[in-house]
Amino acid sequence: MAKSATSTPAELKELKTLVGAMRVEPGEKVKLKQYPTAFTGTTLTKETAIRIMDEGIEQVSRLQDVLYADDKHSLLIVLQAMDTAGKDGAIKHVMSGLNPQGVKVTSFKRPSDNELDHDFLWRHYQALPARGEIGIFNRSHYENVLVSKVHPEIVASEKLPGIDTSRPLPESFWKERYHVINDFERILVRSGTIVLKFFLHLSKEEQKRRLLSRIDDQEKNWKFSAADVHEREYWEAYQHAYEDAITATSTNHAPWYIIPADDKWWSRLALTTVLHKTVEDLDLRYPTVSKEQLAILAEARTRLVNE
Amino acid sequence: MAKSATSTPAELKELKTLVGAMRVEPGEKVKLKQYPTAFTGTTLTKETAIRIMDEGIEQVSRLQDVLYADDKHSLLIVLQAMDTAGKDGAIKHVMSGLNPQGVKVTSFKRPSDNELDHDFLWRHYQALPARGEIGIFNRSHYENVLVSKVHPEIVASEKLPGIDTSRPLPESFWKERYHVINDFERILVRSGTIVLKFFLHLSKEEQKRRLLSRIDDQEKNWKFSAADVHEREYWEAYQHAYEDAITATSTNHAPWYIIPADDKWWSRLALTTVLHKTVEDLDLRYPTVSKEQLAILAEARTRLVNE
Repeated sequence: MAKSATSTPAELKELKTLVGAMRVEPGEKVKLKQYPTAFTGTTLTKETAIRIMDEGIEQVSRLQDVLYADDKHSLLIVLQAMDTAGKDGAIKHVMSGLNPQGVKVTSFKRPSDNELDHDFLWRHYQALPARGEIGIFNRSHYENVLVSKVHPEIVASEKLPGIDTSRPLPESFWKERYHVINDFERILVRSGTIVLKFFLHLSKEEQKRRLLSRIDDQEKNWKFSAADVHEREYWEAYQHAYEDAITATSTNHAPWYIIPADDKWWSRLALTTVLHKTVEDLDLRYPTVSKEQLAILAEARTRLVNE
Repeated sequence: MAKSATSTPAELKELKTLVGAMRVEPGEKVKLKQYPTAFTGTTLTKETAIRIMDEGIEQVSRLQDVLYADDKHSLLIVLQAMDTAGKDGAIKHVMSGLNPQGVKVTSFKRPSDNELDHDFLWRHYQALPARGEIGIFNRSHYENVLVSKVHPEIVASEKLPGIDTSRPLPESFWKERYHVINDFERILVRSGTIVLKFFLHLSKEEQKRRLLSRIDDQEKNWKFSAADVHEREYWEAYQHAYEDAITATSTNHAPWYIIPADDKWWSRLALTTVLHKTVEDLDLRYPTVSKEQLAILAEARTRLVNE
C-alpha cells in the first residue's frame, strides 16, 4: 500500500509538532476551547497525509507481529468522543490492515443488569487485551465519569452503598472515580500494557453537519439515532466532564491525546502517528533462542530427518 | 488493492469446479486420501489467484459493512488443521483488511482448570460472534473429537460421570459428541449464524518441510515447538479422527470444506472464495427506514435546523 513518493522534511516536522501538542501533560488543566477541532497546519496536504498514514499502518502491522512474538506487552487504545466524531470510522480505517488475530475491539454500550450488579470496572477488565494483543475500547471505563456525570441517574442505577442519589453527587465522588481509574491503569501498565487514550475533539457545528447528513443521505439513515440529537442539549456539560476527566487522568503512564476530529483524514493520521511512534519506541525484537532451546531444535531436526 | 486486469472465464470456471469439490456433502463417508493436499488445477496461476483473492477480500470487506448494518446474521468460521498447515497465516492474509470492529478471532488452546470444570462446549459458547459480527475459531469445539480422540487421557481430565476412563472409550461416546456438536451448530444456524468449517488438508511430507524450515531458518525459530514433532507420531490417528468427525458433522446447515493446504496461495484463495460466495449469497441489504422512522428523522431535522 505504501506509495513510492516520500514525505518532505517540512511535512514531517509539521506533523510531529502538531501531534506533539495533542498530548496532555500531567498536571495540565485542560480547557477544550484551547485545543483545535480542525487541522491547523499549513504544509501538510490531505494527499500526503493519506500516504503517511498508509505507511504508518503498514509499519504498525509489521510491528504487531513482533509484539505478538515478543509476548511481553499489550496495547490498550481507549477511544472517547461525542457522537459522530468518528470513532467507528477511525477503527475501520486505521485498524483494518492489522492482523485481526491480535486485535480485540470492544464497544461498550449501556451496561446490562448483570454488569450493573458489579463495580464499574468489572466489564472493562474482562475485555482487556492479552499479552501480545492490541485492545481497542470503543467508549470505555471513562463513560463512568462522562455520561454518568452528565446524567447522574445512571449512578443511581448502580445501587452503590452510602450514596444518597436524591441529592447532587459531591465532587469527591468523581475525584474518587478518577483515582480508581488511575490506579486501574497503573496496574495495567505495570503488567506490560501500554495505555493510549484518545479524545476525538469535534466542534458542535461539525456534529450538526454530520447529523444532518445522516438524515439527508438515505444511505446513512440507518446510522441515525434521534437520541444523538437529544444528547446535544447536554453539549456543554459533556465538554466540562471531558475537561475534568482528562485533567485528572492524563498521567505519564497513560496519557490522553486530544485529537482534532472535524477533518477525518487529519484525526486518522494523528491517531496513526501516535500509535506508530508508541509501538516503535518499544523497540521490540523477535525472541532469541537459548542454548537449551537450540539443543532441542537440533534433536528435533535429527528426529525429523531420520523418520 | 484490486488490479485492473480481470480473470479469464476459464480461470474462474476452474476455480469454481475445484472449490465446489472441496465441500463435503452430508452423508458422504470421507476418505482424506481421496482429497488433494495440493493445487490440482491446470489453468489458474498463482498470480491470477492472488488477484482474485484480493478482489474477493475487498468484496467481503464491503459486505461486512452490510452484515453489520443488517444486524440479522453472524458468521462463524471454524479452522481446523494439523500443525503448520497455515491456520494463522490464513487468518492474517485473508482476514486482514476486514474491519476489526466486526471480527472476533479466538484461538483455543489447552483448556484451563476452570474450563475443564464445565462441559466441553462452554468456552466455545462464550466466544461466539454477536449478530453482525464475523467470528473465527482458530481450533474449535472439534478438538474435543480430534485431539481428545487421539489422546483419550484428555477425556479423563474432564472428570465426566459414568465414564470409565481405565478402558478404551466406546465408539458410542464419540457418536454422542458428534451429535451434541451437530445440535449446537443447528441452534446457532437457527439463530441467524452462518457456520463454515474448514479443514486445511496438509500432506505429511509438507509438514516435515515446514517443521525443518522452522528449525533451519533462525527467524522462524520462535515459532517452533518440539511438541509438533512429537505429535507427528500420531499422524494416522489424527487423519482417522478427522475423517470420522467430518463424516459425522458435515451437514447442510454447517458444511465442512476440505482445503488443500500444501500450497498456501491456493488454500487462501479457496478459503476466500467460499467466504465471499457465502456472504454474497445472503443477499444482504442496508436496512430500510419505516414510515415511523422517517417521521422521527423529519422531526430531528427541524430540531437541528432551528437550534
